[in-house]
Amino acid sequence: MNEDNQALHKLTSLGKKILDPILADRFPVLEVPDRNTSNIVYNAKQNRFVLGSSTNRRDSSNINHIRSFTQLAWVASFAKQLLEASRTSSLRDLYYSSEAFNVVFKDQAESDRIVTDLECVTGLPREAFGIFPDEHSSIYGRVIMRYSVPGYNGREIDLTISPDGLPIGPALMTAEPIKTDAEIVLAVESGGMFSRLIETKAWQTFKAVLIQLGGQPPRATRRLIRTLNEKLNLPVYMFTDGDPWGMHIARVIMSGSANSAHIENLTTPEATWIGVTPKDIVSYSLPTEKMNNADLKRLDELSRDVRYSEPEWQKYIEDFRKLRAKAEQQAFSRYGMDFVVDTYLSDKIL
Amino acid sequence: MNEDNQALHKLTSLGKKILDPILADRFPVLEVPDRNTSNIVYNAKQNRFVLGSSTNRRDSSNINHIRSFTQLAWVASFAKQLLEASRTSSLRDLYYSSEAFNVVFKDQAESDRIVTDLECVTGLPREAFGIFPDEHSSIYGRVIMRYSVPGYNGREIDLTISPDGLPIGPALMTAEPIKTDAEIVLAVESGGMFSRLIETKAWQTFKAVLIQLGGQPPRATRRLIRTLNEKLNLPVYMFTDGDPWGMHIARVIMSGSANSAHIENLTTPEATWIGVTPKDIVSYSLPTEKMNNADLKRLDELSRDVRYSEPEWQKYIEDFRKLRAKAEQQAFSRYGMDFVVDTYLSDKIL
Repeated sequence: MNEDNQALHKLTSLGKKILDPILADRFPVLEVPDRNTSNIVYNAKQNRFVLGSSTNRRDSSNINHIRSFTQLAWVASFAKQLLEASRTSSLRDLYYSSEAFNVVFKDQAESDRIVTDLECVTGLPREAFGIFPDEHSSIYGRVIMRYSVPGYNGREIDLTISPDGLPIGPALMTAEPIKTDAEIVLAVESGGMFSRLIETKAWQTFKAVLIQLGGQPPRATRRLIRTLNEKLNLPVYMFTDGDPWGMHIARVIMSGSANSAHIENLTTPEATWIGVTPKDIVSYSLPTEKMNNADLKRLDELSRDVRYSEPEWQKYIEDFRKLRAKAEQQAFSRYGMDFVVDTYLSDKIL
Repeated sequence: MNEDNQALHKLTSLGKKILDPILADRFPVLEVPDRNTSNIVYNAKQNRFVLGSSTNRRDSSNINHIRSFTQLAWVASFAKQLLEASRTSSLRDLYYSSEAFNVVFKDQAESDRIVTDLECVTGLPREAFGIFPDEHSSIYGRVIMRYSVPGYNGREIDLTISPDGLPIGPALMTAEPIKTDAEIVLAVESGGMFSRLIETKAWQTFKAVLIQLGGQPPRATRRLIRTLNEKLNLPVYMFTDGDPWGMHIARVIMSGSANSAHIENLTTPEATWIGVTPKDIVSYSLPTEKMNNADLKRLDELSRDVRYSEPEWQKYIEDFRKLRAKAEQQAFSRYGMDFVVDTYLSDKIL
């Protein structure tokens, strides 16, 4: 069963759960997995966050439940419409579309939450229903992907076709990797570094597929990283800024986030964070900035986070705390334009 | 003379202006066009902001000038290095690169300002020297462009190759439009609308090249819009949110901004703002939000802005003020997914 069919199947059975009781003169009731912190648990074996077994009851006979029940039913029917028309929608668009149906959401935050409910109920990410956020990151490298979106179905694209990279949008996210002669995936935080690695031909030097994360990457990007790792057997390296935020981008790609505990196939546990580590800051004498209060507070939070329980990660936090300084990945430019490729990445990857 | 040669030529003559006096035992002096508000004038004939004739003297014999003088000389030499190596750099990267040369910038804001000085002195945009911001917007449509960047020189790309669009990065920005069977350029504010217009095949319906602005677009995007307008004779339509900010995106594409008064070839005076206008909000009964204080304050500012001196634009401002409400371009979704294409854009463009 392909993904669209699976999504349609899930929606149809959700519809039956609502319709069948009504036809039998009973009020439909839905069980929605509970996303409260108390029900988000870290699964050490899977090395990622998952939801526990607790669920919330949405009983359409209960006046307090009827609003969210109706909203969920509408989001599901909107998703079905999208699938059947082979369309996509941004989360924002979905919010506005609700007005056409007199379904009321207080604000987009509320409709976003109901979309997450739909994910929990069906066990599928919103992207499987064609619902995407506005932002996206980019990719560049010697991979052939095969599109499955209408108008492009079956068409193949070489991800080196555009020297500016390609956006990881709805079409590329659902495309299938066909072949590659790359040997690694190298995900970098900033657009500047991404461009630099393209034009210095670092992607050839390291036989790398380059991915620009642009801060915490959208889930489509995390999923594509996993796909490249699984389907093409490419080890994944992550190169971020040397601060708690950069480190955490890497950690989320590896182990997921609480917000997406209900979604599978987003994490790449074997991915490697190459830096900028606190040790790199010292040994490469990088120009630094002093950590501010937000940085230090973030380190405190991370030190208590289950994803950082392993000694290796506690050590990074400890080292950052001692250093009280941070450095951007651009900081290697102090040694000239080519240093980051010729020296740093070569030290770390080869 | 191609653009790289022209940029190199400008840098060389700047270098001579510094070197010749030194060889003749005199202190070099540079005249940098003054970018203070008092020297930014609106040229009604060109329909855009330009710099007046006032200049600032940077005299290397003056201890107060020596810092900015040296910084400018370094930025120019860095730009020359980039050009000669056919490389690009982000503004951030340039800031960090300065450390390799013991050139001190207090922060990136300071190095950004010196880059603008270089633009003023040479009369060329930083992009001509390979210096780019991090962000970019996207394009999609039936245009063939020919790249001139190393590794891709002479290679052609069809801008419908990727159904997610293509980023307007260093490579695409410097590419030459070869041919098209499109008849208009349709620039839209949000990524969601851009995706919607691709997948509904609105680009076929309107024979349009689609551009995603993503808020106030980077200058590379404004320049590409102008190029498509000039070289391919495509009229340009702009579709933004219905609020002072969206309207001003359109106005800047048409008439430029004070910040880039020193740069030519960025504006497209004949471009048309199709909406969302205050009148559209009323006649299409769009869902609105109340304007907040920032919106109202912005309207006041715009009403005094020379770019809004024509009656047509004063009317928009007046209508927004009366309405005291705003609407996003996504708001058309209240009438279903296809309304924006089948009805609104058809009303406005065809």
